[in-house]
Amino acid sequence: MSRSSSGAAAAARSIASGETSAEQVVRDCLDRIREREPAVGAWQWLDEQHAIEQARACDRLRDAGGPCGPLHGVPVGIKDIVDTADMPTELGTVVHAGRRPASDAAVVWALRAAGAVILGKTVTTELATYSPGKTRNPLDATRTPGGSSSGSAAAVAAGMVPLALGTQTNGSVIRPAGFCGVHALKPTHGALTLEGVLRVSPSLDTVGFFGTSLEDLELVCGALGAFAPAQPLAAPPRLAFVRTPLWPRTEPALRAAFDEMLERLGGDCEEWELPAALEPAWDWHTTIMEAEMAFHLRAEWDRRHELSPSLQGQLARGRETSAFGYQRAQSGAQALRSALGEVFSVYDAIVTPGTFGVAPLGLESTGDPAFCTPWSLAGVPACNVPLLKSPEGLPIGLQLVGARGADMRLLRIASWLEGRVGP
Amino acid sequence: MSRSSSGAAAAARSIASGETSAEQVVRDCLDRIREREPAVGAWQWLDEQHAIEQARACDRLRDAGGPCGPLHGVPVGIKDIVDTADMPTELGTVVHAGRRPASDAAVVWALRAAGAVILGKTVTTELATYSPGKTRNPLDATRTPGGSSSGSAAAVAAGMVPLALGTQTNGSVIRPAGFCGVHALKPTHGALTLEGVLRVSPSLDTVGFFGTSLEDLELVCGALGAFAPAQPLAAPPRLAFVRTPLWPRTEPALRAAFDEMLERLGGDCEEWELPAALEPAWDWHTTIMEAEMAFHLRAEWDRRHELSPSLQGQLARGRETSAFGYQRAQSGAQALRSALGEVFSVYDAIVTPGTFGVAPLGLESTGDPAFCTPWSLAGVPACNVPLLKSPEGLPIGLQLVGARGADMRLLRIASWLEGRVGP
Repeated sequence: MSRSSSGAAAAARSIASGETSAEQVVRDCLDRIREREPAVGAWQWLDEQHAIEQARACDRLRDAGGPCGPLHGVPVGIKDIVDTADMPTELGTVVHAGRRPASDAAVVWALRAAGAVILGKTVTTELATYSPGKTRNPLDATRTPGGSSSGSAAAVAAGMVPLALGTQTNGSVIRPAGFCGVHALKPTHGALTLEGVLRVSPSLDTVGFFGTSLEDLELVCGALGAFAPAQPLAAPPRLAFVRTPLWPRTEPALRAAFDEMLERLGGDCEEWELPAALEPAWDWHTTIMEAEMAFHLRAEWDRRHELSPSLQGQLARGRETSAFGYQRAQSGAQALRSALGEVFSVYDAIVTPGTFGVAPLGLESTGDPAFCTPWSLAGVPACNVPLLKSPEGLPIGLQLVGARGADMRLLRIASWLEGRVGP
Repeated sequence: MSRSSSGAAAAARSIASGETSAEQVVRDCLDRIREREPAVGAWQWLDEQHAIEQARACDRLRDAGGPCGPLHGVPVGIKDIVDTADMPTELGTVVHAGRRPASDAAVVWALRAAGAVILGKTVTTELATYSPGKTRNPLDATRTPGGSSSGSAAAVAAGMVPLALGTQTNGSVIRPAGFCGVHALKPTHGALTLEGVLRVSPSLDTVGFFGTSLEDLELVCGALGAFAPAQPLAAPPRLAFVRTPLWPRTEPALRAAFDEMLERLGGDCEEWELPAALEPAWDWHTTIMEAEMAFHLRAEWDRRHELSPSLQGQLARGRETSAFGYQRAQSGAQALRSALGEVFSVYDAIVTPGTFGVAPLGLESTGDPAFCTPWSLAGVPACNVPLLKSPEGLPIGLQLVGARGADMRLLRIASWLEGRVGP
């Protein structure tokens, strides 16, 4: 894993060695936020004093020789659909304005137990679906940061916080990471518990992370104790390039960037075609997501006049879905999982776009998640590796997809890829 | 566990000691079948020569000093919805007349690996649902044996085979065991794989067993290696008597038998009432079962004019079920599981009827499974303990229900109950 001189892992090392303090790390974040937040709008809730107090408690604990976890003093941003006992959690909708959870989500509790400073709550789209929040892309304020974990991706991309938690049901981690040019991991579905996280579509909902490097992602995965450790790669990984039927709709800049990368990879990457029988994967995902949203957001349905028209439409369609169609879609998802199980007995990882190109202009839409859909449906881990750029220097989503449960190994393969085709 | 001098466990012991041969045990079964089958009609397929050849192979293996499993030479009847590579598997419907599976169901393979002789295929109702097969109650040919595992229950009750495999989706093991007066276990849902078993409603479908004693059930559970062993009880178990809202509909003979048993149990059994919030359990079960049947029997739907009107009606209703209603029902099932988890932190087992009374007269219906429904929905193990009888001497279903995963412990509690209130 390549080492970064800034970021979460570097901060953890500097705090552990006494080179800096947790308070200093947090103050550096707050300085950067003061500078960049007016243009970016990544934060839904942030109390500087509360953040500094958490950092001071970390420093006191360290000075007293107390136990210091692997994230001791590291600031983390938390998507505002994840419960925090000491901060509001408003789920991106006026329906839940002022909502104060009684307790931390399990994953927040685990981050605190590992020593993390919960810096604040990041902007989410409406109920983690498609209607955008206030966040702008830090690389170009006229463009979307992507969604639904808009604030988490933008905050890391803007250098406001080295690590942030997001969630993905369709493309809500990998897509904004692709548009903002940060590292991100959507782990294997089910690896991290959803206790205390808004349930949108539990068959798909997955907690993930944004970081400044693969090392940051490895740090947080290791700290959470939910992932099997991976050995260093003994040999170059076998990679499969998957275009998917979406390929013709990609932007020319993406196709050029991929062509160049594939040329550099040469024999290390072969093309694999999604079997035609799996092409309904996008329909299966829609069916499952809308049906489950309709059930899990049933209380919100009662206040639907306060929801966006697009979400109302999704919920209405979900309420019309038949149990037969839902089971057919779940059965299709199972077929996709089986097929990928066979792919991953031959290849170590799939290389595929994470976005159709660069972040779209405008803030009305968070962009198309379709390149993330099959991997969300399959529940396999996916990683954004920000290696590719458009001629104007805007990031393009490069997604690496691994076998179920091989999350840490996927990070190692991403590291190999960075070494192989990085600048 | 009390020891029986006949039955599967006794046969296994006699064969292991050389006191008798597998061939002799099988020939005794075949003699009994020749005598009783014309009146009972428990078997869908049975080839005497094929059974004898399996038994001879067991004897040859033993004589040669080969490895002998815990069921070595023990004859087992298999419900005709469970695939067998060497026998037809017709699923109780003309739609699948003459069907020959390519391979054994996983559980059949496991029984063979443990040494069992697969004696033949037992009668099932139509696609393991409600429309009866030819089987009559061996204790009174004018009465139903119950269903859907009609042949398996009747074959054991008639002494034709000491052990038989059935399946339960609603009350298809516990109800026929109750009506036929045999021991039976419906294990924890998911403990035994359904690979090669007709899928009716996978959220509910469970493979179970009928035997001549608790010892027989313990033997087969141990042989399959899917159940945690249980220590002998250190103290009398704490029992909860649950009437359920069905109690007023029970027959007077059942109420009298339960009253007498509860009086004998005295302080060892307290009454526990199903919380009102769980009373929709029967509706949740219907919703899940019909929705899943509609999907998993979709190929049969295309030939629905060959199905019974009642099954056509179930499938039609299942096709109309909404994904919303299906998820609400699954969520209710989860609430039931949680509530039972709490019950089983206080009590070791639930005592409740398994039937409304004795086996109903007539063969048009297999009787009402409602007393089994909540435990099938919860996926907890349930056991029929044939201790209770009507004044005319017909068996009455006495069901013992245990905590998820505590299948072997449930058998020990049943054994304690037999000692405490048995004849």
